[in-house]
Amino acid sequence: MKKYIFGQPIETQAAVLELPAEQNPVPIGTIHTDKNHWKMSIPLNQKDVVYGLGQTVRGINKRGWTYTSWASDDPEHSEDRHSLYGAHNFIIVDPVEDPEAKPFGLFIDNPGKVVFDIGDTKRNEIQIQSAPDLNLYLIEGNTSYEISQKFRKLIGQSYIAPKFAFGYGQSRWGYKTKDDFRDVLSNLKAIDVPVDMIYMDIDYMERFKDFTVNNQEFGNHFKEFVDEMKKEKIHLVPIIDAGVKVENGYSIYEEGKEKNYFCKMDDHTSDFIGAVWPGYSVFPDFLNHEASQWFGMNYKMMTDAGIDAFWNDMNEPALFYSETGMKNLKNYLAEFAADPELPRDCYDTFHLNDQVNSIKNSMKDYESFYHHMGDQWVSHDKVHNLYGYKMTQSASDAFKKLRPNERTLMYSRSSYIGAHRYGGIWTGDNKSWWSHLPLILHQLPALNMCGFLYTGCDLGGFGADATRDLVLRFMQIGIFTPLMRNHSALGTRDQEPYRFENPEDFSFLVKTRYRLIPYLYSEYMKAVQNNDLMFRPLSFDFPDDEIAREVEDQLLIGHEMMIAPVTEQNKTGRMVYLPEEMIQIRIKPTCQEVGRIILGEGWHYIQYPENQVIFFVRKDKTLPLVHIPAKRVDEIDYDNLEMVGYMDSEYELYDDDGISSDLDHCNASITIHKS
Amino acid sequence: MKKYIFGQPIETQAAVLELPAEQNPVPIGTIHTDKNHWKMSIPLNQKDVVYGLGQTVRGINKRGWTYTSWASDDPEHSEDRHSLYGAHNFIIVDPVEDPEAKPFGLFIDNPGKVVFDIGDTKRNEIQIQSAPDLNLYLIEGNTSYEISQKFRKLIGQSYIAPKFAFGYGQSRWGYKTKDDFRDVLSNLKAIDVPVDMIYMDIDYMERFKDFTVNNQEFGNHFKEFVDEMKKEKIHLVPIIDAGVKVENGYSIYEEGKEKNYFCKMDDHTSDFIGAVWPGYSVFPDFLNHEASQWFGMNYKMMTDAGIDAFWNDMNEPALFYSETGMKNLKNYLAEFAADPELPRDCYDTFHLNDQVNSIKNSMKDYESFYHHMGDQWVSHDKVHNLYGYKMTQSASDAFKKLRPNERTLMYSRSSYIGAHRYGGIWTGDNKSWWSHLPLILHQLPALNMCGFLYTGCDLGGFGADATRDLVLRFMQIGIFTPLMRNHSALGTRDQEPYRFENPEDFSFLVKTRYRLIPYLYSEYMKAVQNNDLMFRPLSFDFPDDEIAREVEDQLLIGHEMMIAPVTEQNKTGRMVYLPEEMIQIRIKPTCQEVGRIILGEGWHYIQYPENQVIFFVRKDKTLPLVHIPAKRVDEIDYDNLEMVGYMDSEYELYDDDGISSDLDHCNASITIHKS
Repeated sequence: MKKYIFGQPIETQAAVLELPAEQNPVPIGTIHTDKNHWKMSIPLNQKDVVYGLGQTVRGINKRGWTYTSWASDDPEHSEDRHSLYGAHNFIIVDPVEDPEAKPFGLFIDNPGKVVFDIGDTKRNEIQIQSAPDLNLYLIEGNTSYEISQKFRKLIGQSYIAPKFAFGYGQSRWGYKTKDDFRDVLSNLKAIDVPVDMIYMDIDYMERFKDFTVNNQEFGNHFKEFVDEMKKEKIHLVPIIDAGVKVENGYSIYEEGKEKNYFCKMDDHTSDFIGAVWPGYSVFPDFLNHEASQWFGMNYKMMTDAGIDAFWNDMNEPALFYSETGMKNLKNYLAEFAADPELPRDCYDTFHLNDQVNSIKNSMKDYESFYHHMGDQWVSHDKVHNLYGYKMTQSASDAFKKLRPNERTLMYSRSSYIGAHRYGGIWTGDNKSWWSHLPLILHQLPALNMCGFLYTGCDLGGFGADATRDLVLRFMQIGIFTPLMRNHSALGTRDQEPYRFENPEDFSFLVKTRYRLIPYLYSEYMKAVQNNDLMFRPLSFDFPDDEIAREVEDQLLIGHEMMIAPVTEQNKTGRMVYLPEEMIQIRIKPTCQEVGRIILGEGWHYIQYPENQVIFFVRKDKTLPLVHIPAKRVDEIDYDNLEMVGYMDSEYELYDDDGISSDLDHCNASITIHKS
Repeated sequence: MKKYIFGQPIETQAAVLELPAEQNPVPIGTIHTDKNHWKMSIPLNQKDVVYGLGQTVRGINKRGWTYTSWASDDPEHSEDRHSLYGAHNFIIVDPVEDPEAKPFGLFIDNPGKVVFDIGDTKRNEIQIQSAPDLNLYLIEGNTSYEISQKFRKLIGQSYIAPKFAFGYGQSRWGYKTKDDFRDVLSNLKAIDVPVDMIYMDIDYMERFKDFTVNNQEFGNHFKEFVDEMKKEKIHLVPIIDAGVKVENGYSIYEEGKEKNYFCKMDDHTSDFIGAVWPGYSVFPDFLNHEASQWFGMNYKMMTDAGIDAFWNDMNEPALFYSETGMKNLKNYLAEFAADPELPRDCYDTFHLNDQVNSIKNSMKDYESFYHHMGDQWVSHDKVHNLYGYKMTQSASDAFKKLRPNERTLMYSRSSYIGAHRYGGIWTGDNKSWWSHLPLILHQLPALNMCGFLYTGCDLGGFGADATRDLVLRFMQIGIFTPLMRNHSALGTRDQEPYRFENPEDFSFLVKTRYRLIPYLYSEYMKAVQNNDLMFRPLSFDFPDDEIAREVEDQLLIGHEMMIAPVTEQNKTGRMVYLPEEMIQIRIKPTCQEVGRIILGEGWHYIQYPENQVIFFVRKDKTLPLVHIPAKRVDEIDYDNLEMVGYMDSEYELYDDDGISSDLDHCNASITIHKS
């Protein structure tokens, strides 16, 4: 691994290995720099594959599009988007066409905007562009898989979630009252769906104020409610947003203001005022060490009440508008409304639309405020992509003090490489679209490459109306992802398992998840400790198989399993490609016995109904399945594991107490299970 | 076929066969009516397939979503949309699970809003809902295919396009000057792309006024420019929009106003004023026979100049806003801007956004204006879905007078069943999305079921930025669709074939199209004359094949051909399902000889590069391919046809002069070609 320094990079702490700065020129591609730009171009051959970029749209092979690393709160994850919530500036170029050439990885460590044109403008060229100050890491190796592991070593060990976080989580924007949460639990119980977590979206707060709870509902007895749920072995998972409401008398606001902990305008004195859910808000300066430490310690109010799980949101940061932007807009609207000549033609109305719609997440606003980093004032746009990362780190640092002995569940919407050491991420506000099933399959390995192992998508889709079959198909994927949460937006069709006909199908899928947890948790923990990918494209393990290279709707999970979910509506089966002989495992609701068939290398048509679970065990491997599904993760019966897969094979099962933060004192064990 | 009358239906002229009204109750499903509603529910079995609905999102099998027939100008054709531009109220229910049951078709002939909940709310039930006045047609038969043909007989023979309309068309919103059009032609010539049509989008007009041309560019010498292009054998295809600019001195406006030919407000006296491209506009009352005849005759200005091809647009009708809507909005904006308290929170800004965005295509506006039908004043919302249909008929009626001997190319954006007799449609403002490749494959057979045979999508995608590979993959489908047009929106990446690297690949695909035209035109004309589908799902021809039933990314074209295009990025091949033995035909740019391989029934992995053309010839069939591709349709060398497919097979080639409107006098011929 080599490090090249250009200009005066802002320290992101993305990498943890100290590498000496190379003095020789970068041996790959062509680099041009000037006062304002850094540009790198890399030639490609027609068949070469480019992996990486973490959370982006499109396929596992990133060729044929331009991706812009610029953390964005954009709920339309359609193919033509350039940016999502995270900025994951790592790519692997695999020159499969040239047997003499070796793959290499590149990490562009610049926390501002970075543009990756991967064979878009020119079909056989990568063009990368950013501001001129950055650290460039070049990772060489023999295979893409090896490079991904080296890169993971460079950026440090991934966050470790508590084991309960592998349970099922139920969520929906709109749960507000104690009875809302109680109903979720009793409804899930009624249809026999195991569950470990119930999520509290923004409505649990008092007028969307961080570290408050709705007075009317929870008043001073929030802890009692947390305890009530704890008795049911349910972890409540409240959301924490980045923006802090501007409100006199609100202690977080007053204290942060007093201590100059919020981002500042260009006078470096007055607070930048944007607007998010609570209306006008200020933004903790997470890039200021002291401010970050201060914000983090506010989680104490929650941890004192017994909360041990959080999600951090709106930390791109999302800006509905700014005080300045709204002032300008109102002036424009007043003029427009007063001018009897307007609109003269359709373009005047298009302009009106643009003005109103462009106050959201405006680049002008992002350029208008500042962070206090050490002795420097840095304008936000130069470090934009660090904000979510540093918010996550702020929480993680605090948890080390507040809950030193136990792991805390923490995941974030926005992230940058480095954040993977402090928390997981979810893939943001996806939609109830069939096309978002392949999307999560494409994102999982790319996120793993960048260290994000605790991850998953909103099952059933967040925006738009879900259908029963879509939710089931989402869940057939979600039962394999570390984060398994059904979540949806206010105003969309209800999509909890108990909202649909034949809820026993949902119950079956979640129960099967709980049977799989020993394997999933074991592979997750091994991936954390070995800097390995839990989710891999087929091509990582079968690099010479030309068909495997293009299969993007199947994934390897750990070292024993492959999945091949159905991702299209009204399909009862699909073609599956086996790069080697495997055993197909079919689990049916009606039958305690697990179906096993050996299938040879090549293509197979597989029937895959909505209410079954199918996976494939790799050649000469076996994996454990719990015999009777538990209702909670901590009730999983590890003494009755059934081994499924090849005879005379062994599986090394990792397990631990699932909660101790110190891995040396968590009763970690590796036990050999034979089939 | 049976007709059931409910209430007092508005006559749509969708059906051409006179059927007696049945007195017995409808033998299928359950119908409830009250003063305001008509509701029909039909039980489904789990495996039953539902076809139809023409231009909608999602798959060929329509189960699992709610479709609302309400002609809508909405450029986001994502899976969660309920309405697109057309209203095609025909479904076929195929009860494949019950061997005793027979399929049936239903046509809900109501020109207002009709909602088809196809197993969405309840997974095994169809729920159809509309206003209480309608004609219901029930079509019974032994197969879905047979039902579709019977239905086509009910609704009358499809529009016949001139043969030149099977050539390649180049389009882009933004061509304005004579030199813009000349450049298109010379650029296409330079890279050897055959072409028959160049499109004139809205900028050819004088300030978007129907039946005018840009004064500065074309002044009084438009005909000379049409002639210049004619010398090159290029047909210019101007757009005609529904809305007529409000402008004193503009003759179309003044004459229509004078004669009360525009839609009226509820006083039945003052014109309804909406806004589209030209700003404030009035809307010809195409449902008023006299007004419709008058508007149509205005095409004379164009046909006199030698124009023989048109596309009708904005005829849902699209409304950017109305005069009333804008007045209300300006009042709201003035209040919002003046109130120092606003916005109090994010919901106030969401409300502002809603107010601004909802002036477009507002239901309130659609409910506010009236048509004069016979002696009746009918509010627009009750007949909304007829507007595009009747605009197309208006043009078609005029062409019978203006160009009585020749066919005129005419297609529309909005349509209703019935419009298929007067013109084709294109599928509207799709996007440069990979997901819009399967979408057009799903729409083609559904549109054919409803009579729309001359159709196709914007190749390369209209909105969003295209990539080279996407445009090639679009064109690999487009070379088989009657309408083959590359079209894109102002502001998106240029996507004409000459904008990309290695334009010879584009040239090859278009040239291959020209080699296919004898077959495509023959099958199209036979489909017109036999009320047949040119594009069919595999299941129509192989109803008992359970795998074929779920294959939605392959289509049968005519009676000899099957296609199986690549619809995903970075794929060099795909699995193809053959419901019977077929011959794979592979046409390569580098090789004059056509590749032929016999493939057995079942699944095959097929390499399919971006610069080849692959199709499959069905068992014991053969089809003609022109030996040397022509530059123009009228130069196609019918004397040198190469037969590809099975030996000792025959093909009946239909041909005619391609232009005469009277099929009895167009030198029609059927010739037998043997392989």
